[in-house]
Amino acid sequence: YGKNTIKFLRLHREGKQHFVKEVEVCAHLRLTSPQEYLEGNNSLVIPTDTIKNIVLVLAKKNGIQSLEQFAIDICNHFMTTFCQVAYVKTYVQEVPWQCLHEDGVPHVHSFICVPDGIRFCEAEQCRNGPLIVFAGIKDLKLMKTTQSGFEGFYKNEHTTLPERHDRILCGELFCKWSYGECKDFDFNCIWKKIRECILEAFAGPPDCGEYSPSYQKTVNCIQMLVLSRVSQVQVIEVVLNNTFYNVVDMKNLGLTNDKEVLVPVEAPYGSCACTLGRK
Amino acid sequence: YGKNTIKFLRLHREGKQHFVKEVEVCAHLRLTSPQEYLEGNNSLVIPTDTIKNIVLVLAKKNGIQSLEQFAIDICNHFMTTFCQVAYVKTYVQEVPWQCLHEDGVPHVHSFICVPDGIRFCEAEQCRNGPLIVFAGIKDLKLMKTTQSGFEGFYKNEHTTLPERHDRILCGELFCKWSYGECKDFDFNCIWKKIRECILEAFAGPPDCGEYSPSYQKTVNCIQMLVLSRVSQVQVIEVVLNNTFYNVVDMKNLGLTNDKEVLVPVEAPYGSCACTLGRK
Amino acid sequence: YGKNTIKFLRLHREGKQHFVKEVEVCAHLRLTSPQEYLEGNNSLVIPTDTIKNIVLVLAKKNGIQSLEQFAIDICNHFMTTFCQVAYVKTYVQEVPWQCLHEDGVPHVHSFICVPDGIRFCEAEQCRNGPLIVFAGIKDLKLMKTTQSGFEGFYKNEHTTLPERHDRILCGELFCKWSYGECKDFDFNCIWKKIRECILEAFAGPPDCGEYSPSYQKTVNCIQMLVLSRVSQVQVIEVVLNNTFYNVVDMKNLGLTNDKEVLVPVEAPYGSCACTLGRK
Amino acid sequence: YGKNTIKFLRLHREGKQHFVKEVEVCAHLRLTSPQEYLEGNNSLVIPTDTIKNIVLVLAKKNGIQSLEQFAIDICNHFMTTFCQVAYVKTYVQEVPWQCLHEDGVPHVHSFICVPDGIRFCEAEQCRNGPLIVFAGIKDLKLMKTTQSGFEGFYKNEHTTLPERHDRILCGELFCKWSYGECKDFDFNCIWKKIRECILEAFAGPPDCGEYSPSYQKTVNCIQMLVLSRVSQVQVIEVVLNNTFYNVVDMKNLGLTNDKEVLVPVEAPYGSCACTLGRK
Repeated sequence: YGKNTIKFLRLHREGKQHFVKEVEVCAHLRLTSPQEYLEGNNSLVIPTDTIKNIVLVLAKKNGIQSLEQFAIDICNHFMTTFCQVAYVKTYVQEVPWQCLHEDGVPHVHSFICVPDGIRFCEAEQCRNGPLIVFAGIKDLKLMKTTQSGFEGFYKNEHTTLPERHDRILCGELFCKWSYGECKDFDFNCIWKKIRECILEAFAGPPDCGEYSPSYQKTVNCIQMLVLSRVSQVQVIEVVLNNTFYNVVDMKNLGLTNDKEVLVPVEAPYGSCACTLGRK
Repeated sequence: YGKNTIKFLRLHREGKQHFVKEVEVCAHLRLTSPQEYLEGNNSLVIPTDTIKNIVLVLAKKNGIQSLEQFAIDICNHFMTTFCQVAYVKTYVQEVPWQCLHEDGVPHVHSFICVPDGIRFCEAEQCRNGPLIVFAGIKDLKLMKTTQSGFEGFYKNEHTTLPERHDRILCGELFCKWSYGECKDFDFNCIWKKIRECILEAFAGPPDCGEYSPSYQKTVNCIQMLVLSRVSQVQVIEVVLNNTFYNVVDMKNLGLTNDKEVLVPVEAPYGSCACTLGRK
Repeated sequence: YGKNTIKFLRLHREGKQHFVKEVEVCAHLRLTSPQEYLEGNNSLVIPTDTIKNIVLVLAKKNGIQSLEQFAIDICNHFMTTFCQVAYVKTYVQEVPWQCLHEDGVPHVHSFICVPDGIRFCEAEQCRNGPLIVFAGIKDLKLMKTTQSGFEGFYKNEHTTLPERHDRILCGELFCKWSYGECKDFDFNCIWKKIRECILEAFAGPPDCGEYSPSYQKTVNCIQMLVLSRVSQVQVIEVVLNNTFYNVVDMKNLGLTNDKEVLVPVEAPYGSCACTLGRK
Repeated sequence: YGKNTIKFLRLHREGKQHFVKEVEVCAHLRLTSPQEYLEGNNSLVIPTDTIKNIVLVLAKKNGIQSLEQFAIDICNHFMTTFCQVAYVKTYVQEVPWQCLHEDGVPHVHSFICVPDGIRFCEAEQCRNGPLIVFAGIKDLKLMKTTQSGFEGFYKNEHTTLPERHDRILCGELFCKWSYGECKDFDFNCIWKKIRECILEAFAGPPDCGEYSPSYQKTVNCIQMLVLSRVSQVQVIEVVLNNTFYNVVDMKNLGLTNDKEVLVPVEAPYGSCACTLGRK
């Protein structure tokens, strides 16, 4: 049980310069005894209202250096304060406020919301177990308009899809990775580096791109690049929900459509997911 | 990988009488080899477009006697047709069309959408493993305006919640249960019976209700009643996402508010989840 | 300016029997002077926080006999209390809680949310003008699986739609009507009667239905029936957003699909709207 | 009547360099005769399916130089092709794809979705009337963490809001403006300029900001700046839906919260709207 979508803004000021972190936190606990379920005995139950208070107090006291550190703080607090807690799991997601710029000059206290991929993290711990930290990015929508195909697939009497060596590849990415033994990482820096890896592996070189023979291979390329460049990552999961773009058949309308007008097919949509770790 | 939200309507006619089942299907596969991820070799990959075609063909050929039977049909088809499939999982969800009534008389071919709890099911199978079937109901919103409290909970310096013996209990229920060895069950009949159990356990007797000392206990009551009344259910998971209703303090406005005007608190919201099986 | 989505629950008790109205209210004002816009002078501005307080106080004092009466109460309060208000408009929408039944017996204090068409109303008034009341229903999803076609339409070189005399008609209805001079109407009773008219005009007789030659004609039938049966309605607007169902072509899959498997097309969707009044 | 959410991607290639415009179009018509409503006579009705075809054909033939030009093209086509069309209105909205950059280098064919304010436009025309063009931006979320207050407002017995001279101002902006007689404007350039005006008027100078005494005044500042800088704009409407941030009271938790931890209040939310034109 626990509390979901605890939303708050943490404002940090250094003179005229303001810094904001707006987050949404979920915090869930499992207690050592199920007596509240079986007997209606609430004596060990920490109310979800108290959980919310604790999250806000920790934000006030510690600030939010990084989502990951804040998630670790929450886990530590519950484990060290309440002996009736057998397991704690927390999820932290960021509202993507960015400093507003005017003619390239950053504003001291104004911000704009730019949701081009949402940063999140998770931390969980069993009593007597290690603290495990995950981080990730979600709702990252990417497209490439060439250098993508899908050929040589399995065919039988239910196959109607034609082979294509030049199609649009478009999808929403979800990536989540785990850090091994959680040392003193610079989580903000690592997160940015991984985001760059994802974009680079998806798109290929800026001047020519790189051919993708399937969504699956693109997922694998992302994973391989992250694992090779970022040593702190132990395991990486990638889910790619793809939107297919249909070339509109304009023959009946007397026109030849050379992949110039395409219609997105939002339902049904394909999905591929893969989890890859180190040996 | 697989295809999500394959939506279709299956229309069945008996003379002037029409019957509709509109569903949304997700079907996911894992293949015996990951060569498409590692090498970009698609020769074993069944395109998600073909997966969609197969789902539609099965709907045409078999109809939809029950969501569960249709999910079983899908699993069976993939397992028996494709030796490269190591695992198949399917999810089926119903659009809640109901026959339209005029003055109590059912209409032969007109329907109204009544989303008071969405029926769904899942089926999954590993090669050489058993076929496992789950069913459930989600998005079921219930409220009781008395016979609910929360007292005697754990308190410390972060506790600000007062004890209450008469509050509103309101939440959105998600229930999912598994059937054991899947015999020739009447899935439609069992589903209706379980829905009735859920409502009865939540609300208590119509003339007086039954006191709920916590969301957790209510979750447990639902599980216990279902397990006692419906022998085919092996394990039942219940998640209750609750909306708290705040009694508006009207003292500053010169009024006494005896729990007559309450404001729903939608974020953050509490959640409790429990999975209960038979010994 | 004003306050949107003021959500609250009004609980009314008669002994053990409870009655609930959960609503969402928007209340907007225009002031006699725009000085807060032009000069930043707030001296006439009623804060939106105060607007919210007033709505809650009226709910506490008057209860909610009907959405319409409550909207009228709000308008009256702002017009009579604040001479700087030049115009007031309020919108009230209901959360569709229904009494829970067990074996046909209604429960005294338990409710289930059944969103099969949402009831709403609006009231507006200019200073020195009449109070105008609208009521309506929205998000009402209906379908008929036969007795619908679309033929004889205008054709040119951009037409690819075939004529059809037996298709599925499915859509989401929005209806809004105005009452004339607002007397002492039984708004709850009238609303139910209009809902029945809408369903009857959409579906036709229960045993055979009635042929619809177009969405437009169906919209007109609904309007004509309401105007003929409910004398209090002066003008009625109907918007029908229709979902087209495509018969899946299964020839390539070796099957004949006699309108048994159809796929909903959710985007783009057609829409037709018409407003009809009395002479 | 008409067709809504006609979604498509227009791909334009210049050698290896790709340009994309993904849009969502709504196109609505009113015919000279209502005979399809009254008599079920469809002979003048242009099917919504044909409307969709025409939009796609125009995209193929003309490309999309700007949303506004495309909306004008659509209006012109319907007015000149169909004498039964009495009125046409079209709405075009853009999916915010941006060129992907790697280390500052733009990619030739890869794109990322960055929804920091959605561009849209409208065009409408009555037969024998002028073609009117609107453009706008919506879903633009902005925040300033100081230089905002609300004081000196009207008070009575229902007022509980305290005066504040330093609060957070956060909201979602909707701006829509009309161009006068529609000449050969550079719509893309004007749109960018107006977006910059909005940000500048909202935030004030980058090093210190500018005090906002109310949402209303900020709305007016945006309008005044746009009208003064962009001569092509005739009338500008701005709606600001604001999210209030509550400073969490931590006294009971033994802490002093100096506006460091704040909780967003998403419902109810305030809204202010104003339309301003030239003399």
